[in-house]
Amino acid sequence: MAQRKGPAVWAAFLWPGGHHHGAWRLPGSTGDDIMSFDNYRRMALDCERAKFDVVFLGDRLDAWPLPDEYLARTARGARLETITLTAALAAVTSRIGLVATASTTFSEPFNLARQIGSLDHISGGRIGWNVVTSYTDDQAQNYGLDHIPPRPARYARAQEFLDVVKGLWDTYEDDAVLRDKETGQFFDADRFHKLGHEGSHFKVAGPLNMERPPQGHPVICQAGASKDGIAFAARNGELLFSINSSIERARDYYQAIKTGAADAGRDPDDIKVLASINPVIGRTQDEAEEKYQQMQRLLDDDVSRTFAEMYFGMDLSGYPLDELVPEIELPDASHGMPRAHQEYMLNKARDEKLTMRQLVYGFNGTNIYPKSAEAAADEFQEWYETGAADGFILQISHVPEGVTDFVELVVPILRRRGLIREDYVGTTLRENLGLARPVNRHTTARSVPA
Amino acid sequence: MAQRKGPAVWAAFLWPGGHHHGAWRLPGSTGDDIMSFDNYRRMALDCERAKFDVVFLGDRLDAWPLPDEYLARTARGARLETITLTAALAAVTSRIGLVATASTTFSEPFNLARQIGSLDHISGGRIGWNVVTSYTDDQAQNYGLDHIPPRPARYARAQEFLDVVKGLWDTYEDDAVLRDKETGQFFDADRFHKLGHEGSHFKVAGPLNMERPPQGHPVICQAGASKDGIAFAARNGELLFSINSSIERARDYYQAIKTGAADAGRDPDDIKVLASINPVIGRTQDEAEEKYQQMQRLLDDDVSRTFAEMYFGMDLSGYPLDELVPEIELPDASHGMPRAHQEYMLNKARDEKLTMRQLVYGFNGTNIYPKSAEAAADEFQEWYETGAADGFILQISHVPEGVTDFVELVVPILRRRGLIREDYVGTTLRENLGLARPVNRHTTARSVPA
Repeated sequence: MAQRKGPAVWAAFLWPGGHHHGAWRLPGSTGDDIMSFDNYRRMALDCERAKFDVVFLGDRLDAWPLPDEYLARTARGARLETITLTAALAAVTSRIGLVATASTTFSEPFNLARQIGSLDHISGGRIGWNVVTSYTDDQAQNYGLDHIPPRPARYARAQEFLDVVKGLWDTYEDDAVLRDKETGQFFDADRFHKLGHEGSHFKVAGPLNMERPPQGHPVICQAGASKDGIAFAARNGELLFSINSSIERARDYYQAIKTGAADAGRDPDDIKVLASINPVIGRTQDEAEEKYQQMQRLLDDDVSRTFAEMYFGMDLSGYPLDELVPEIELPDASHGMPRAHQEYMLNKARDEKLTMRQLVYGFNGTNIYPKSAEAAADEFQEWYETGAADGFILQISHVPEGVTDFVELVVPILRRRGLIREDYVGTTLRENLGLARPVNRHTTARSVPA
Repeated sequence: MAQRKGPAVWAAFLWPGGHHHGAWRLPGSTGDDIMSFDNYRRMALDCERAKFDVVFLGDRLDAWPLPDEYLARTARGARLETITLTAALAAVTSRIGLVATASTTFSEPFNLARQIGSLDHISGGRIGWNVVTSYTDDQAQNYGLDHIPPRPARYARAQEFLDVVKGLWDTYEDDAVLRDKETGQFFDADRFHKLGHEGSHFKVAGPLNMERPPQGHPVICQAGASKDGIAFAARNGELLFSINSSIERARDYYQAIKTGAADAGRDPDDIKVLASINPVIGRTQDEAEEKYQQMQRLLDDDVSRTFAEMYFGMDLSGYPLDELVPEIELPDASHGMPRAHQEYMLNKARDEKLTMRQLVYGFNGTNIYPKSAEAAADEFQEWYETGAADGFILQISHVPEGVTDFVELVVPILRRRGLIREDYVGTTLRENLGLARPVNRHTTARSVPA
C-alpha cells in the first residue's frame, strides 16, 4: 500500500462521564456532572482550537441495560439527548463539525429530516448524522415493543428511512429561493418539489418545510460493524467508525469497506474510515501508565463483570477472574457493535493471554493507549500512512483531562508531522472532509435532456 | 373584578418572516432570510434585555397548506424546526424562557421526554413545551396517514402522552443523584424508577436516561382553542395562548379557563392566560398607521384570499371583495386554532362592518395594534388590570423592527407603570412565572405513610 501524506481526519467522541467507567471518580474529573452542557461546551471549544474535524456525540435510547444496583455505580444512567445538545453546541462553536446520533428504528423520517436539516442550517453546514438502528430489547421497550426487530428488518427500514430523508432535503432546489422583495416572489414554485414517497415502511407526501441544508445533505455517519451494517455503510456511509484490535485487522476492514463502496458504484474516497482509539496520554510512558492504572483502580469486579456480561449478552459468573480467558462461545444472536466489542476483546485476550479479570476490566474502550505523546503520534502515523484508517475517533476516557492532554501533548506533534491541519480549509464539514456536496435529485433530472 | 397590580407576563411569538404575510418585503426586514439562526438570536437577546418572560416559537409539520403558486409568494414555506432552534437559543441566552412547539400526534413520548428534558437541562430550567396535536390532513400525510385523526382521539392521545412524559421526567427523584467519587456510588438505586406504563396508546418501560429536569417538569404551554383543547388546557396547561377579538370576549374566555382549572381541582393561579396581540407601534398614531398600511400594500388579493380560504377551509371566490362580509356558514369540521381565527374574524367583521377585502387582508394576526406606544400601553394595562389576561403574547408582525420598536417605545412606558418587571426574579421560567415546581410522584408517594 502506498504511503500517503497530509492531514488525517480527527474526531473526538465525548461521553459525559468519560469512556472509562471509573473515570468519573478521578479527582478533578467533571465526569460526575453528566447533565452539564457547560462541560461539553468547553471540550468542544478545546477541540475546535485544535482544529479537529468533528465532535462526535453518541447516544442510546435507554439508561444502559445494567441491573440498577450496578448502573448506580457508573456515570452511564443519564445524559443529554444528542440532537438538542448538538444544536446548543452549534450555537457556541463556529468551525468544527458536529455529529449527532439518531435512530431510524424509533423515529419518523419527517421529524428527523427536519431536525438534522435544521441543525445544518443553524451550524452553517457543519453537521453529520450518525445513523443507528438501535439493537437492544430494553430500548425497544421504551417504544411499545417487547423485542427489538431483527437486524435485516432494521436495516431495510434504515435504508428506506434514509432515502426518504434525502428526498425531503431535496424539496427546494438550490436556486429555488429568490427572496425578491420587489416582485413579492419568495421562491420559484417550479423548483419546489413534493416527495410523494410510498414504500414498505413509510408514506410521506412532503414537501419538507425547509430550504435545502447548506451541505445539501448533512454528512452520513455510521458504525458499520455487522454484516448488514457494513453493507449499509458501503452504500450510504461517508464517515465511518470502526473497532479493530490490531493494525492488520484494521487494514483488512479498511479494504473491505473501500471495496464494498466501489462495488456499490461509489468512489472509495467518498468514505472516510476512522479507527476508534482511547488515548490515555502522558509526557512519558510511565506517566501514561500511571494515569491508566489510576482509573483502573476506580473499578470493581462486580461492575466490570456486569459491563462485560452486557456486551457478551451472557452470564460470565462461571469463569474465575484469576484464570486465563478460555474459548468462549458467543451467543448466535450477537452482532453489530456488541459483536465488534466481543470479537475485539476475545482477539485481544488470545493475542495477549489475558486473565478474565483483565478481560472484564478491559470493557472501557478499544485500543486503549496508555502511551507517551510521542509514541501515540508514532502509532497514529503508522495506522494512517499504511492504510489502516483515514483518521481517528478518539473515545475520550476521562473528561476533561483526556481532551486537554491530547490537545496539549499530542496535537503539536501531529501538527509538526502534517497529520493534523493548520486551519480549517472550508466552512462546512463536507468541505473540511473533502466530500462533494450532493447534487439535488431534481436539478440532476432537470439537466438531463428528456 | 378587582384591579390588580404588578408585572404582567410578556411573551414574544417569533415567526421567521414576521406574522404579517407581506412584512418580509419591507425594506430593512430580515424576514426574507427565514432559515437564519442569527436573526432569532438577535431578537431573543433584545427580548431578554427587555426582561420578557418568554420567546415563543411556533411550528407546523408542513410547509403550509396553500397552493404552491401562492405559497411561493409568502415567507411561510420553510423554517427551522423549533426543538433544535430552542436548544441553540438556550446556548446564547441566559435568563429568558424559551417555548418550543412539539406535536403529540406525530412523535413518541420517549423521544420528546428526552428532547424537552434535555432542553431544560441545557437552558438551566428555562423551557416550556407548547403541546399541540396538529390539525390538518397535509401534516398527517407526512406521517403515513391520509387524514388527521379526529380531535377527541388526538386529545386522548395527547393526555396519555403527557402523562407518560411527566412520569419519565420523574425517573430520578431530586435527591437520587449522589455523585460520590469516594465510594463510587453515582446515584441511589432506591430513588431511581422505571415507568412500566401500559395504556391505550403507549407502552413505555422506562427508566428515562436523564436526571430530573431543573424545573421538575418544564412548563406546559397550550393554545386551548377548541372545546377539547380548553378542557385539556384546564387540566394540564400552565401558560395559555388565547385569541379573542374584544376585551369582553377575552374576559369571558379568561373566566372560563380559570373556572375550568378550579373544576379540575387546580389553583386558578397556576394557569397564566396570555392574550394574542400583533403590535404595530409608532411614536404617534399616524406613524403606526402608516407602518401598518405599508405592510398592507405589500399584500395582494390572491394570496390574501388564499390565506383566508385556508383558515376557513372553504372556497371564498364567490364573495365579491368590495362587498360587506355576509353571514358565512362555517364548515362543521372546523375547530381549534382555525375555528378561533374564523370566529375572531367574523366577530370583527360584524362589529366593524368590514368588506370581504378587509376580511381577507386581515388574516395577518389577531388584535393588530397600529397604535402609538402610549395608546398600546393603555390598552395592555386595561386588559391586564381588568382580568382579560395575565399577560400578552406579542405576535411580531415584522422582523426585526417589530421587536425593536416594541422594546424601545413601549417597554419603557410599561416599566414606568410597573407592568413589566425590572429584572428576572428567579433563574428558571417557573420561578419567573410564579409557578410551583412539581413534586416528584415517587417522592410524594414516599412521604405519605403506607
